[in-house]
Amino acid sequence: MTIGVLGGGQLGRMLALAGYPLGLDFRFLDPNPDCPASKVGDLIVGEYDNPNALEHLAHECDVVTYEFENVPARTVDFLEAHVPVYPGKTALAVSQDRLSEKTMFRDLRIGTADFAPVDSIESLKAALEKVGLPAVLKTRRFGYDGKGQAVLKVASDVLPAFEELSRLQSKNGIRPALILEQFVKFAREISMVCVRGQDGHCVFYDPVENVHVKGILARTTAPALRMSDSQRARYEDAAKLVLNCLQYVGVLTIEFFEMPGSSGAILANEMAPRVHNSGHWTIEGAVTSQFENHVRAIAALPLGATTARGRSVMLNVIGGEPDIQKLMAQPNVHVHMYAKQPRPGRKLGHVTVCETDLARLEAAVRSAAVCMNNTVG
Amino acid sequence: MTIGVLGGGQLGRMLALAGYPLGLDFRFLDPNPDCPASKVGDLIVGEYDNPNALEHLAHECDVVTYEFENVPARTVDFLEAHVPVYPGKTALAVSQDRLSEKTMFRDLRIGTADFAPVDSIESLKAALEKVGLPAVLKTRRFGYDGKGQAVLKVASDVLPAFEELSRLQSKNGIRPALILEQFVKFAREISMVCVRGQDGHCVFYDPVENVHVKGILARTTAPALRMSDSQRARYEDAAKLVLNCLQYVGVLTIEFFEMPGSSGAILANEMAPRVHNSGHWTIEGAVTSQFENHVRAIAALPLGATTARGRSVMLNVIGGEPDIQKLMAQPNVHVHMYAKQPRPGRKLGHVTVCETDLARLEAAVRSAAVCMNNTVG
Repeated sequence: MTIGVLGGGQLGRMLALAGYPLGLDFRFLDPNPDCPASKVGDLIVGEYDNPNALEHLAHECDVVTYEFENVPARTVDFLEAHVPVYPGKTALAVSQDRLSEKTMFRDLRIGTADFAPVDSIESLKAALEKVGLPAVLKTRRFGYDGKGQAVLKVASDVLPAFEELSRLQSKNGIRPALILEQFVKFAREISMVCVRGQDGHCVFYDPVENVHVKGILARTTAPALRMSDSQRARYEDAAKLVLNCLQYVGVLTIEFFEMPGSSGAILANEMAPRVHNSGHWTIEGAVTSQFENHVRAIAALPLGATTARGRSVMLNVIGGEPDIQKLMAQPNVHVHMYAKQPRPGRKLGHVTVCETDLARLEAAVRSAAVCMNNTVG
Repeated sequence: MTIGVLGGGQLGRMLALAGYPLGLDFRFLDPNPDCPASKVGDLIVGEYDNPNALEHLAHECDVVTYEFENVPARTVDFLEAHVPVYPGKTALAVSQDRLSEKTMFRDLRIGTADFAPVDSIESLKAALEKVGLPAVLKTRRFGYDGKGQAVLKVASDVLPAFEELSRLQSKNGIRPALILEQFVKFAREISMVCVRGQDGHCVFYDPVENVHVKGILARTTAPALRMSDSQRARYEDAAKLVLNCLQYVGVLTIEFFEMPGSSGAILANEMAPRVHNSGHWTIEGAVTSQFENHVRAIAALPLGATTARGRSVMLNVIGGEPDIQKLMAQPNVHVHMYAKQPRPGRKLGHVTVCETDLARLEAAVRSAAVCMNNTVG
């Protein structure tokens, strides 16, 4: 069986590295001939809306998936005429638009921050009345790593932010399509990496805790500490509602805010219809990695066990090359480099530190961290 | 850094899958355009003694290694003029010839079965007097998976076996070059997978126990059961003598016979200057796999920890396709297929069963074994 992947970044690369041992083959489509996946599999160089490139991909593959959520809807329509595409159009459509995403969460009675659509000065006023300040104004589409959003603390922040984001959108030929969200003072960010098979069977990795630096994921602790069984069940129940609502196939990641205090209230923040940076720890830290499980799901193979193997911390390598010799000299540090050129803010790789004991884990993380040369921007 | 690999079989394939995450790149040389490694990296199609192909490989790589021990000496000579080749010529030369191998073991005072060279009727007689019966007559070169050898139980077995093996060799244009070895009634076969870095640092995986069926490895149990610390040290000491004697760089595998009784005497049987089937369990069953450690060694990176993660059993998939759906439905069963066409006796893949508890491990191995469809020959 040959699996087509839209996008040849590090996620596509790691999908292939996990899928080859299952006897599967891979083809990538990416406009960049030197993308990370080009080193590990056959690449079709082309834009994601190029019909010739898409036909070539569809012709060579038995199933197609994607490693980023901004795949054009027309692309999926075109491919679906020839070959199954997973996780599928509904999941893509919902996750491409923060308003649809939050609306789905609300419809499923999963908690979210208050939100309201903003497409004009009038709707901005109405949204402010509903949501209040502080708040975050975001583009509905194409935001990532903290880009395309502005925090509004006081009234005088509002208009400049609206004008700036509207200008950003009009530059791209889009009329204002924003969302105002309540600024949430959460205790921590938790993400759920979960998998649904073609038969509807769902499995869940342990909830993990994420720490961002300047909007970019810097560290994931897996499993998250201080997680009671009932709290874990709350996350799984919410994730399961989303998986089933979307008739999802593959790995889905949902980011939650866990609120302070004893209630343990959780707010769904956003989702990604794909393998996710907060699941990279699963390569060494779980029985089956997120990459293998995504491939198993879309290839109609049984899902693998998601059980954690000990404790893991994933640290992203961002912007600058780390001291590879020093990193590799540490036992229980696993290095993953993506064959990308250094540039501030760019994810070049990640390392996963695995230990059974919490104190040893944190000591090993400190030793790994001093080998990093991260430049975020 | 780009690593060249002579041979594009499953070992080369798994070397690349382990090396890509370290940010390394791979080129293979193999006469078969559809070899297992062709799916996962750039392949130069050519014979191993084709100067154009070798020059192409040397030109594109920073270091060259091999996945089989029958690399022609001229090939290494040619490559070494352009690029470092590891594990290197001495290790190749010794391991290509059973007589050199056994002589080296003996010179290092590592126990071996009694042996004597046979290249004529006269030397056959002398060898029989020294070694006695039962014995095994083997070609000195190019034997694998039980091929090129004959068991001599009684005097009437001797001449026919000599004639048959001599004919086999003369067909290949070689005059008789055989070795007679004492037939050893061992308690079990143990193999040591070990690694030496360019700085001379050595690390050792746990000794493992191998079971062969019709001369082909069928099962490896890792770590081997009933292995005292002193016995383990005996294996490590022997392996270390070999590694240092050869100034070895990379993974070396040595197969030993463990003798019955309380003495725990060990006899070195043969070695392979490469990653080895009896080390496949390390992918999931050890902190760092044999493949990653081989790559680390030849790329002058620090060696990774060899500590076992729980208990593992590796089962080879031989000759026929297993029931992949059923295998993958079992938690803690890891499937590795090599993208090869089925043929009796051919290694098509392997599965590794991982557990912490011995009883659960054996139960899981039984469940996995019924999914197999092995045809050995």
